[in-house]
Amino acid sequence: MNTLDLNCDMGEGFGAWTLGDDLALLEHVTSANIACGFHAGDPQTMRRVAGAAVARGVRVGAHPGLPDLQGFGRRVMQVSPADAYAMTVYQVGALAAFVHAAGSRLNHVKPHGALYNMAARDRALADALAQAVHDVDPGLVFYGLAGSEMVAAAAARGLQVAEEVFADRAYDDDGSLAPRGTPGAMIEDEQAALAQVRRMLDGHVQARSGRLVALRADTLCLHGDQPGALAFARGLRQALAADGVQFEAPTRR
Amino acid sequence: MNTLDLNCDMGEGFGAWTLGDDLALLEHVTSANIACGFHAGDPQTMRRVAGAAVARGVRVGAHPGLPDLQGFGRRVMQVSPADAYAMTVYQVGALAAFVHAAGSRLNHVKPHGALYNMAARDRALADALAQAVHDVDPGLVFYGLAGSEMVAAAAARGLQVAEEVFADRAYDDDGSLAPRGTPGAMIEDEQAALAQVRRMLDGHVQARSGRLVALRADTLCLHGDQPGALAFARGLRQALAADGVQFEAPTRR
Amino acid sequence: MNTLDLNCDMGEGFGAWTLGDDLALLEHVTSANIACGFHAGDPQTMRRVAGAAVARGVRVGAHPGLPDLQGFGRRVMQVSPADAYAMTVYQVGALAAFVHAAGSRLNHVKPHGALYNMAARDRALADALAQAVHDVDPGLVFYGLAGSEMVAAAAARGLQVAEEVFADRAYDDDGSLAPRGTPGAMIEDEQAALAQVRRMLDGHVQARSGRLVALRADTLCLHGDQPGALAFARGLRQALAADGVQFEAPTRR
Amino acid sequence: MNTLDLNCDMGEGFGAWTLGDDLALLEHVTSANIACGFHAGDPQTMRRVAGAAVARGVRVGAHPGLPDLQGFGRRVMQVSPADAYAMTVYQVGALAAFVHAAGSRLNHVKPHGALYNMAARDRALADALAQAVHDVDPGLVFYGLAGSEMVAAAAARGLQVAEEVFADRAYDDDGSLAPRGTPGAMIEDEQAALAQVRRMLDGHVQARSGRLVALRADTLCLHGDQPGALAFARGLRQALAADGVQFEAPTRR
Repeated sequence: MNTLDLNCDMGEGFGAWTLGDDLALLEHVTSANIACGFHAGDPQTMRRVAGAAVARGVRVGAHPGLPDLQGFGRRVMQVSPADAYAMTVYQVGALAAFVHAAGSRLNHVKPHGALYNMAARDRALADALAQAVHDVDPGLVFYGLAGSEMVAAAAARGLQVAEEVFADRAYDDDGSLAPRGTPGAMIEDEQAALAQVRRMLDGHVQARSGRLVALRADTLCLHGDQPGALAFARGLRQALAADGVQFEAPTRR
Repeated sequence: MNTLDLNCDMGEGFGAWTLGDDLALLEHVTSANIACGFHAGDPQTMRRVAGAAVARGVRVGAHPGLPDLQGFGRRVMQVSPADAYAMTVYQVGALAAFVHAAGSRLNHVKPHGALYNMAARDRALADALAQAVHDVDPGLVFYGLAGSEMVAAAAARGLQVAEEVFADRAYDDDGSLAPRGTPGAMIEDEQAALAQVRRMLDGHVQARSGRLVALRADTLCLHGDQPGALAFARGLRQALAADGVQFEAPTRR
Repeated sequence: MNTLDLNCDMGEGFGAWTLGDDLALLEHVTSANIACGFHAGDPQTMRRVAGAAVARGVRVGAHPGLPDLQGFGRRVMQVSPADAYAMTVYQVGALAAFVHAAGSRLNHVKPHGALYNMAARDRALADALAQAVHDVDPGLVFYGLAGSEMVAAAAARGLQVAEEVFADRAYDDDGSLAPRGTPGAMIEDEQAALAQVRRMLDGHVQARSGRLVALRADTLCLHGDQPGALAFARGLRQALAADGVQFEAPTRR
Repeated sequence: MNTLDLNCDMGEGFGAWTLGDDLALLEHVTSANIACGFHAGDPQTMRRVAGAAVARGVRVGAHPGLPDLQGFGRRVMQVSPADAYAMTVYQVGALAAFVHAAGSRLNHVKPHGALYNMAARDRALADALAQAVHDVDPGLVFYGLAGSEMVAAAAARGLQVAEEVFADRAYDDDGSLAPRGTPGAMIEDEQAALAQVRRMLDGHVQARSGRLVALRADTLCLHGDQPGALAFARGLRQALAADGVQFEAPTRR
C-alpha cells in the first residue's frame, strides 16, 4: 500500500504583505515548508505559521531561499557553495528555533525557488546544501526534486531523503521539470494532474515526449498561491484516499 | 577572589565591509558576542567568526539587534514586544546553528545597540527578550546592563544572568550609562578606566555626580572598533591579573 | 465654489506582493502618492503605477517613507534631520525619474506613515523634509497634515502646500489625528465620514470632544487597502459633486 | 594631443561601514561614479560624496548596481531587461537628485560589477540600460567597457559614449577583460600597467595571447579600494602628463 506526503510552501508573506491562505492549506497537507526570511517570511510570520502547523500536527520544514526579497528568490544568483552553505545553516537554524519554541522539532528542509532549481542540477551546490543541513541537525529529512543531484547529494551525505514530485508540472525525458513558459509545461487539467500523480505512485512519469521515465514519489508539492488550490488539494486527496493511499510525512530520525 | 568575564562584540562586518579586528581581539576576551545579520553580520561572517571563537575556546554568544543595517541597529525603533520576541528567536536560532556546526554550543545572548538600551529601561520589552532566549534554550546566559530591567526580567524568567559593566563609560546616579554626547560620558583616560573597573569589582561605581552606586560586575564589555582597543584590552587584563582577578566566562547550564 | 483634491497612496506592493487595487483607484482620485522603495514599492512597481497614473491624467507625487520594509514604514524610528533629509532626496529623486520617463513631471511629495506622523509634530524633522523637497525641485507641492508643523515648515521654506484631511479619522482639539486604537479614532459610518468632509470644506472639523476646530482642507486622503474603499470613494465623490465641489489636484509651479 | 578621463568608483560604503578613501581619490580623478544604494551607498553617503565631488569640480556619475548589498553587486543575477531598466531609472534618478541638490548636474552613468559585466556581453540587457539612461536624461554620457555590447547599445540609442579601459587588467583577443582568477588576469607591475595605458592611447591593447587588439580609450578606471591605489594614480597621472596627455572628463550635452 502506498504512502504519500503532501507538502506545501507556507509563510511566504512579508511584513504587511500576505500570500496564500496558510491556515486553510494546513488542513490538507501533511508537511509544511516555511519561508525563512531571505526570499519571504519575517520573524513574526515564521512564529505564527510554525505555531499553527505544530498545533495541527503538520510536520514543519525549513524552506530556505536566496537573499532576494524583491525577486522572491526566483532569480538565479551565482552564489558559491560556501555562500549557499552559510545561508542554509542560517535559515534552517532560525526556523528550527521557532519550531522548538512552539514545542516541536524541525522535521525537514526543502530549498526554495532558484536555489532549488540550481541545486537540482549543480552537484557542488547540492553538496553544500546537504552538508549545511547535516551540520545543523543530521536527523533532518532533505526534500529535493525526484531523481536530481540534490537528492543524490543528500543521500551521499547520509541524510534521509524525500523525493519530491509535482502534479501540475510536465516533465522532460531526463526527469527534469519542463521549464515554465515552454509549451505544455503546466498541467492545468485536474484529471490529467491526478492521472500523473497516480502514475508517479507506480514509479514513473510520462514525459512531454511521451516517454515513460522512472521516478520515485515520496512527497507531492501542492501550490497554495493559486486560485482553486484548495479545491484541487481536497479533490486530489479524496481520489487518492479512495485508491488506498495513506497520507503521512516522512519523519526525522 | 574575583572572577571577571571579558566580552566583545564581533562579526560586525557585512558582505564586503569589515569592522574591527576580530581575530586579534579573540586573544584578549573570554566571551564573544556575534552579530546575527539584522544590524550587522552575514551568514559567511557568522560562520567564520563563530568558528574562530570556538577554535580558541572563547565562549560564543548571540548579539541580536534591530532590523536596521543602515543604522547599525543604533536607531531607536518602536518595536512591539511581540516583534522583539520574534526577532530575538530568529537571530539566536541562526547563530546557534553556526556554533553547533562548529562543534560547540551557544553560551549566551547579549542584545545590541538600541535594542539593548531600550530593554534596559522598558520591562515589557525586556520580558519579551528574556522569554525569547528562554524559549530557544533555557540554559543560555543572558548578558544585560548591570542593575537594569533587562537583568531583572531575565532573572525573573529563570535565566542565568551576567551583569555587564563598561570601563570607558560614565554612569549616572540610577546606575544607567551617561548618554553618549553628554559631558564626561566617555572615560578616555586609561588609568581612570582601570580605576573604574577595580571599583566595580568591589561592587560599586562612582557616578558622574560623585556618588557611589552599588553595582554587580560579572562581565566587562571591551570595544573592538576603536583605535587603541587592543592595547587597552591587553593592559587592562595584565593589571587586573596582577590584582588576582581570574578571567572566565559565565557558562551555560 | 469649493475645490478639493482626492489623493490616494499607491504602488505599495513589493516584488511578488501586491496591496490594494491601484488601477481601479486611479479612476476615483485626482492625485496619487507612489511608494518609493523604502517602506514599500520596488522599481518595476514604481514604473508601472507611475505610468498608469500619467496615462489617466492623475497627478503623481512621491510617497517617501522610513527604511523599514518589514514594518511598512509604520514603526517610529529615531532618524536625525540629516538622515531624513537624505532619505527624502533619494526617494523623491528616484520617483521623479520614473514620472519623467513616463512623459510627465513629478507634482508633489507626501511623506508616509511614521515619517508623516513624526514630521507633523517635530519641526526640525519637518524642516529637513521641506528642505529636501525644495532642493530636489522647488516647484513641487508639499502635502502634509492640515495645521501641522509639516505644513508650517513647508510654507516657511517657500513651497506650495496642500493641507491634507481625512474622512475616516477622528480629530482631537489641537487638530491632530486621534491615535489609532483609541476609542472613536476611526469613523466607520459613511454618512458620518461624508458629514465630516462637508464640515471640513467649510473650514473646520468637530473634534472627539465636540469642539469645533478650524482647519483648511486642500486634499482628502482616500485609503485604497480597505474593503469597501472603492465604493466609498465613488459615493463620496458623487455626493460632493452634487454639492458643487470641483475635484482637482493642486499643481506644481 | 590625447585627452583621457580618469574615473573612480566612490561612495561604496554603507551606513557605519566605509570603503576606500574617497576624499583623497577626488584629488586624482576627473570623474567619479557614485554608488546608488543597491550594491553599496546609502542616502547620507551619496549626499556627502556627491557634494565633495561637486565642490572639487569633479564630474559626477551614477554607478547603479544589482540589488545585492551582501554580495556588493558582484554576484551574477538573472534579471530581466525590464528589471534592469527599472533598477537603472531608480538609481540614476536618486543620484541625480543629490547632484542637483549640490548645485550641479549628473554627468554620466556607469553600471557596476556584475551588471556591468553582464551588459558588456548581453545586448538585450545593454539595450535596457541604455534606454533607462536615455529616459531619465538623454544628455547623460554612458560609460561602458571599450568595444562591448554596452557601448554599442548606448551609441545606437543616441547617447554620448565613453569607452572605458583598465590599466591593471589583462585583455583577451576579443577585447574582453581576462576573468579575475585566471592566470595573468591582473597586471600588478606598475610599469606594465603604464605601458598598457600608453598603448591604449594609441588605440590598441596587447592581449594575453600577445595579439594586438584595437580599442578606443576615453576613460580609465582607477581602483580606490586597493593598497597603493593613491600612489599608483599619482604616478600614472604624472607620467601621462609628461607625455602630453590632457585629463578631462567627457561632458554631458
